[in-house]
Amino acid sequence: MASTEGKTITCKAAVAWEAGKPLSIEDVEVAPPRAGEVRIKILYTGICHTDDYTLSGKDPEGVFPVILGHEGGGVVESVGEGVDNVKVGDHVVPLYTAECKECKMCKSGKTNLCSAVRATQGQGLMPDGTKRFTCKGQELHHFMGCSTFSQYTVVSKYSVVAIDPKASLEKACLLGCGITTGYGAATKSPGIEGSTVAVFGVGCVGLSVIQGARAKGCTKIIAIDINDKKKDWAKKFGATDFVNPTQLGDQSVVDKLIEMTDGGLDFTFDCTGNVQVMRQALECCHKGWGVCNIIGVAPAGAEIATRPFQLVTGRVWKGSAFGGVKGRSELPGLVADYQSGKLWVDQFVTHHQPLDKINAGFDDMHAGDCIRCVVDMGFGDAQ
Amino acid sequence: MASTEGKTITCKAAVAWEAGKPLSIEDVEVAPPRAGEVRIKILYTGICHTDDYTLSGKDPEGVFPVILGHEGGGVVESVGEGVDNVKVGDHVVPLYTAECKECKMCKSGKTNLCSAVRATQGQGLMPDGTKRFTCKGQELHHFMGCSTFSQYTVVSKYSVVAIDPKASLEKACLLGCGITTGYGAATKSPGIEGSTVAVFGVGCVGLSVIQGARAKGCTKIIAIDINDKKKDWAKKFGATDFVNPTQLGDQSVVDKLIEMTDGGLDFTFDCTGNVQVMRQALECCHKGWGVCNIIGVAPAGAEIATRPFQLVTGRVWKGSAFGGVKGRSELPGLVADYQSGKLWVDQFVTHHQPLDKINAGFDDMHAGDCIRCVVDMGFGDAQ
Repeated sequence: MASTEGKTITCKAAVAWEAGKPLSIEDVEVAPPRAGEVRIKILYTGICHTDDYTLSGKDPEGVFPVILGHEGGGVVESVGEGVDNVKVGDHVVPLYTAECKECKMCKSGKTNLCSAVRATQGQGLMPDGTKRFTCKGQELHHFMGCSTFSQYTVVSKYSVVAIDPKASLEKACLLGCGITTGYGAATKSPGIEGSTVAVFGVGCVGLSVIQGARAKGCTKIIAIDINDKKKDWAKKFGATDFVNPTQLGDQSVVDKLIEMTDGGLDFTFDCTGNVQVMRQALECCHKGWGVCNIIGVAPAGAEIATRPFQLVTGRVWKGSAFGGVKGRSELPGLVADYQSGKLWVDQFVTHHQPLDKINAGFDDMHAGDCIRCVVDMGFGDAQ
Repeated sequence: MASTEGKTITCKAAVAWEAGKPLSIEDVEVAPPRAGEVRIKILYTGICHTDDYTLSGKDPEGVFPVILGHEGGGVVESVGEGVDNVKVGDHVVPLYTAECKECKMCKSGKTNLCSAVRATQGQGLMPDGTKRFTCKGQELHHFMGCSTFSQYTVVSKYSVVAIDPKASLEKACLLGCGITTGYGAATKSPGIEGSTVAVFGVGCVGLSVIQGARAKGCTKIIAIDINDKKKDWAKKFGATDFVNPTQLGDQSVVDKLIEMTDGGLDFTFDCTGNVQVMRQALECCHKGWGVCNIIGVAPAGAEIATRPFQLVTGRVWKGSAFGGVKGRSELPGLVADYQSGKLWVDQFVTHHQPLDKINAGFDDMHAGDCIRCVVDMGFGDAQ
């Protein structure tokens, strides 16, 4: 039993007091977990574009003040009543896509989108409608059910999965979002084996799609990015071709891709969040069977559009969240794939920052040569 | 051997000389079939909204003068060299969706969209780039590879299928478009068995979706139409519920349907061609797995739009043409289903007209109480 069990813990966290301002390192109080909740000591966290999006103020559902972060790895410090899926000392990854295994969605067998904590999570609250963070007398909101930019956080028992303690949490934290999102989207696409694939946007998610396509034996994997520096990254992860749409002269990227593939792609993935790119990703699909999977998060209010003829002639427009992966059921398998070398994770980490330099980590992310920056929460590997 | 074999036939046809004008009954000359072609004596033809759309001039690919019509039934009069899939005297249905069984599309096993005659068909020409119809010294274009508004027509051997001669051609002609389009779209949807379905637009195609859903044991089949007269039709064909969007007060049809189905539909079908309805059909789908199938043909240039979040949260936007049915391989099976009573066809025929009153048939179609008007080409059932 941890000496802190049942007590409020005071620790360091990066607080977003308001939109558009840098994060502020503060001493925060983290209340003990209530029934069905888990308090986690976060050792490492990635920084993802979604954190940046909400911090920017563009996310209409963003609430402040808040502790951001949703790509973490840590150790269970204590659990509330009725928690039987993780125990004190377990190495865990928080899950922004929960899995209760009991709701209509979980039981359907058709989706990873659990509805158990969805409403409160979207409001920045714990499932009982309250908060566990306080700073300077003010309550702080939770974020995506995770809030990993704090040395300690509290999550629903449905929003956490135990992983093999031998796996490096410094790396495995990245399975909490970007890598799983891309790798799952590719590997869970029925019929992708041996097909042709286009991946728009070569960041963490795009590279993960590429390695998923490689794992499935795809014969042609075309990476598309407006940043030429991404070519080597794409090739390293398994892309067979690279296209920079800004260097095609008068030819559209859609025409270029159709030309390269004798009629279009079998599968395409948008990892940009740009609605114009989402349209390109659909329209370069092969007539009759091409499937476009939207992964990127678009700006609030932005809409996708196309002529319905594109669909009537057999293209499919779909999307996925967290790669279609059920976190509690499937993440341990991805960790095992990481440990066996089948799934690359270490290779994504280009930058490191300590918690008190987390704003520099956001700068890293914007610099263009960064795939993932991992933040060390200050415990090292100590537990 | 027919006495007309190898000779030009002069017969009656309804000619569309120019857009926006009524059809004109004329004596036309129909040249003999060339290699790979089949000349058909058309006994009956349906009138479909697509004929009307092209006649209106709104179809940017429409070419004039032309012989319209694509929902026909007839008897093979003669065949050109190298035709081995039908023979003189066969009862046949022309296919606007060809099936060559040899192209990349046909061999893929993933689509019914054959590419063999696509380019020339779209230009109103036979596969060799020429025409077989002449009237008053002027060549007439072909339409959708069928041109069934003529007592004799010539089609590619890939665009015709022989059916059981015991089936009524007066009814089976409707399997050449509307009924197959709707019934195929429903019955070929993977996982539709026992699910909930919404059908937007209760015409021939929509009713065919409804009976397809009924055949698959769908538990809730909601028909949506702004014409209350369609309620009885929908119920007759198997709908469990009917919604008139104009009578919902402040509630949107999307909200109404989500309310009726505890979160949304498993499958929806747009049979209207209205791009706003296509959006509704997507957005009333259940999060996580709902599939929207676009069947209707939209006006030229019209676009569909939605927030990508609709797709990221698990809805699928797709479409189909001719119900995903491979005409030569699968139409005989649908005819058998018709003959056994499993597939309703007779019930669609609300109006009849002789060829010389075909313009009255177009008026019938617009009147709102018409499902299908069948045109008698003047031969009776004689062959």
